[in-house]
Amino acid sequence: MLKLNDQLSVGGSRILIIAGACAVESLTQMKSIVEFLHNKIDVLRCCVFKPRTSPHTFQGLGVVGLQIVEQIQQTYKVPTITEVMDISQIPIVSQYADILQVGSRNMHNFELLKALGTSKKPIVLKRGFAATIEEFLMAAEYIKSFGNDKVILCERGIRSFDSSTRNVLDLGAVVLLKKITNMPVIVDPSHACGRRDLVTDLAKAAIACGADGLIIECHPEPDLSITDAAQALSLEDMGILLTKVKLVAESVGRHIC
Amino acid sequence: MLKLNDQLSVGGSRILIIAGACAVESLTQMKSIVEFLHNKIDVLRCCVFKPRTSPHTFQGLGVVGLQIVEQIQQTYKVPTITEVMDISQIPIVSQYADILQVGSRNMHNFELLKALGTSKKPIVLKRGFAATIEEFLMAAEYIKSFGNDKVILCERGIRSFDSSTRNVLDLGAVVLLKKITNMPVIVDPSHACGRRDLVTDLAKAAIACGADGLIIECHPEPDLSITDAAQALSLEDMGILLTKVKLVAESVGRHIC
Amino acid sequence: MLKLNDQLSVGGSRILIIAGACAVESLTQMKSIVEFLHNKIDVLRCCVFKPRTSPHTFQGLGVVGLQIVEQIQQTYKVPTITEVMDISQIPIVSQYADILQVGSRNMHNFELLKALGTSKKPIVLKRGFAATIEEFLMAAEYIKSFGNDKVILCERGIRSFDSSTRNVLDLGAVVLLKKITNMPVIVDPSHACGRRDLVTDLAKAAIACGADGLIIECHPEPDLSITDAAQALSLEDMGILLTKVKLVAESVGRHIC
Amino acid sequence: MLKLNDQLSVGGSRILIIAGACAVESLTQMKSIVEFLHNKIDVLRCCVFKPRTSPHTFQGLGVVGLQIVEQIQQTYKVPTITEVMDISQIPIVSQYADILQVGSRNMHNFELLKALGTSKKPIVLKRGFAATIEEFLMAAEYIKSFGNDKVILCERGIRSFDSSTRNVLDLGAVVLLKKITNMPVIVDPSHACGRRDLVTDLAKAAIACGADGLIIECHPEPDLSITDAAQALSLEDMGILLTKVKLVAESVGRHIC
Repeated sequence: MLKLNDQLSVGGSRILIIAGACAVESLTQMKSIVEFLHNKIDVLRCCVFKPRTSPHTFQGLGVVGLQIVEQIQQTYKVPTITEVMDISQIPIVSQYADILQVGSRNMHNFELLKALGTSKKPIVLKRGFAATIEEFLMAAEYIKSFGNDKVILCERGIRSFDSSTRNVLDLGAVVLLKKITNMPVIVDPSHACGRRDLVTDLAKAAIACGADGLIIECHPEPDLSITDAAQALSLEDMGILLTKVKLVAESVGRHIC
Repeated sequence: MLKLNDQLSVGGSRILIIAGACAVESLTQMKSIVEFLHNKIDVLRCCVFKPRTSPHTFQGLGVVGLQIVEQIQQTYKVPTITEVMDISQIPIVSQYADILQVGSRNMHNFELLKALGTSKKPIVLKRGFAATIEEFLMAAEYIKSFGNDKVILCERGIRSFDSSTRNVLDLGAVVLLKKITNMPVIVDPSHACGRRDLVTDLAKAAIACGADGLIIECHPEPDLSITDAAQALSLEDMGILLTKVKLVAESVGRHIC
Repeated sequence: MLKLNDQLSVGGSRILIIAGACAVESLTQMKSIVEFLHNKIDVLRCCVFKPRTSPHTFQGLGVVGLQIVEQIQQTYKVPTITEVMDISQIPIVSQYADILQVGSRNMHNFELLKALGTSKKPIVLKRGFAATIEEFLMAAEYIKSFGNDKVILCERGIRSFDSSTRNVLDLGAVVLLKKITNMPVIVDPSHACGRRDLVTDLAKAAIACGADGLIIECHPEPDLSITDAAQALSLEDMGILLTKVKLVAESVGRHIC
Repeated sequence: MLKLNDQLSVGGSRILIIAGACAVESLTQMKSIVEFLHNKIDVLRCCVFKPRTSPHTFQGLGVVGLQIVEQIQQTYKVPTITEVMDISQIPIVSQYADILQVGSRNMHNFELLKALGTSKKPIVLKRGFAATIEEFLMAAEYIKSFGNDKVILCERGIRSFDSSTRNVLDLGAVVLLKKITNMPVIVDPSHACGRRDLVTDLAKAAIACGADGLIIECHPEPDLSITDAAQALSLEDMGILLTKVKLVAESVGRHIC
């Protein structure tokens, strides 16, 4: 079990629920999300630096987004997670976020991993979308060998030959990782499938097979999401997901908040 | 819901449990398996024609194996499933087996699919290990367009770049198929992971996300299995799997026998 | 070097050129093709049984197509290759075709491979689109272990995560196979890329790295091709391909007819 | 055609040959390589920062390696290329190297790409081992949209299900890229196959299908290579490769130095 702060840990009987915005878009958006979620989840997802395929699309609000995060935290006290894409972002992001995230595209960014190894913050390390289990563990080892033991592994789908879903969620990797490492393992079903109609059932599957937590993307108006709209749950559906996941968690001897 | 015989159907609230031998090896082996399983499962897996990578390895007992199946059925009355690899095997296999299986390697064997379209038997159609969802549905359509509507789809893992597990179980495909077709969808976690220590947790995941059934390989002495030994559960572990799957099934409003 | 008939062999310094129709559509179509190609190529491709993803699309002319092949052969004397998809097709096809082809989707159809092992005809065995090199060699071994040594391996592209091209031509496999087996290895760039604008350059690459031959699809009116229109070369472009391939072949010490 | 310096350009009739060490190991090693190669190639590969799967393996000589590069250049005047893994390495590396390389694992490192967009140096951008063509072009667009037009695309193999070769060289991507972009496209056959016995034939294939250049790894004592020993050519074999590539280049109307 990994302690994240005085109140929160991951890897025990309680399932860690991380949910929120793919990208911080505005104070209004984030208030709607946190108002609905703050007593239902453990950590608020609020990314401000976005790794986008094209340089000509929205790249995240950056520091302005962090100020929105700060305002949210003053009112709601919910722990937050946000992504860092480069060493230079670590200091500023660390002032606002409780947990730092390494995205799938940066799992092989070894210089970033080394720098996060000297951070005191817990790190959610997402599996590269074409990384083997061994490479995934070695990426975690980069962080740990530089002194930071607080690494949470996150399976988020791997790339396959089939375009029906955005990626293929590899729950066999989750089960295997739980057997060969004592790091917590969480699952991001939103990026795995890329379609909101599949997210809830995959979340249930993840918990049934032993995942220690979930990261879910939601939005007050999903179709207006600037990024990854197709996979964002409405807040109402987010609530339904939590109700259903709770029942599955209990069937495997675990619980959610 | 698809009716398989007077007592048995698949696709309703009851989860269909298929379990048994990767390959029929001997009467003794099959008796051990069926003695333990017969009142715990719905259908006995007993394959006698084996699609093996090398021509120099065990190819299945063939007709001799079918005679073992017949002896088992006389005592235990359990429905059986066995694989057909070629049109020429359909008549003889149909005398003994209640359900016919098309293996992953034959999902694109269109002449076989057409011939099974004229059979009266239910068909379990396994997804090709590199088949897209669309190709999988079109393979089912080959069977159905020749007159046989009793098709059960089976996700059994797809091939990936990672050799940690034999294949990658694609539960996103299961969730998607449940949304876009009314054919029942079952899951084979044994072939998906290829490691017995991962089978039970993946079976739980499959049921949690909405699969209508499971196919599980077991053996009285797993390490002595002639085929696929690494993924065969012991009978004891098979019993544990069923107990655990039962709880997850109930958490999603379903049950097993 | 493998002798195919009294005049023709493959695997020596001469590159084997197979070209023609994806599918035999009519006598007119085949006459146009053979009229143009007959003294430029070694073997005429003329498939009459077509493995199609959907049962509701053109499945090939079947026996009617074979009669067209027979008429063509009476005039032009060019050796022919055609695909067999099922054991039951072997006798009739063997009356008309000089070489039998196993398609990518049937590389794992072990019963078909065994039956072809008892044929006297040379077999072009296409690599399964997700088959490993080891599986490819074992499929050839199925044919050879039943008595037929005349096996020609054909690399035709493997399935990847990228949909820019239909498949990914794996020339590393060609180079490797040439080192570890003495079977001839030919390449089908048409199926590998699925786009006619890429076929010629990939054909040149195949010959440069040591392939023993090519299979190319062409059509007198490519856009009117019933099957695989996107990858069919016009006859004019087919001629250009041969001119260019000739130069590359000479640069590696080989020649074409 | 892209001008790299006063003497050197890429994308015209002359094939750009980059060759040298996977990693700079010592002055002795580099002297042996450059002594042999300097008048046979266009650019010397000399990497000092190495992206390694494990943090516990050799990470490159770093700045010490750059000093070796400087000594080499004082004597031999050959242009050099070296990899940058992080923004912080750009200034120091730019003092020594003529061309900067982005490795496959950093193709999605968008902050690094943006920073290289403000550099004056030509950039060799390697394709991510699981990147689509579209993602590859968008990564180049990151560099170009920040002001640096001197981008050379490098295909270096993609990850597949088959472990016979390290990666699968995707020459269809090379042919396609040459049609849809005017950036030069070069090929790294060493990383594509990961086996020295396949490198030369794949290099020939790359040139035959239209690649504008090659990057080849060699070592005075290949088996003693600290990194990627299996794919390093001996200097003698490097010479043979160049002789053979020259002939193929001429067959497609191009030449090497």
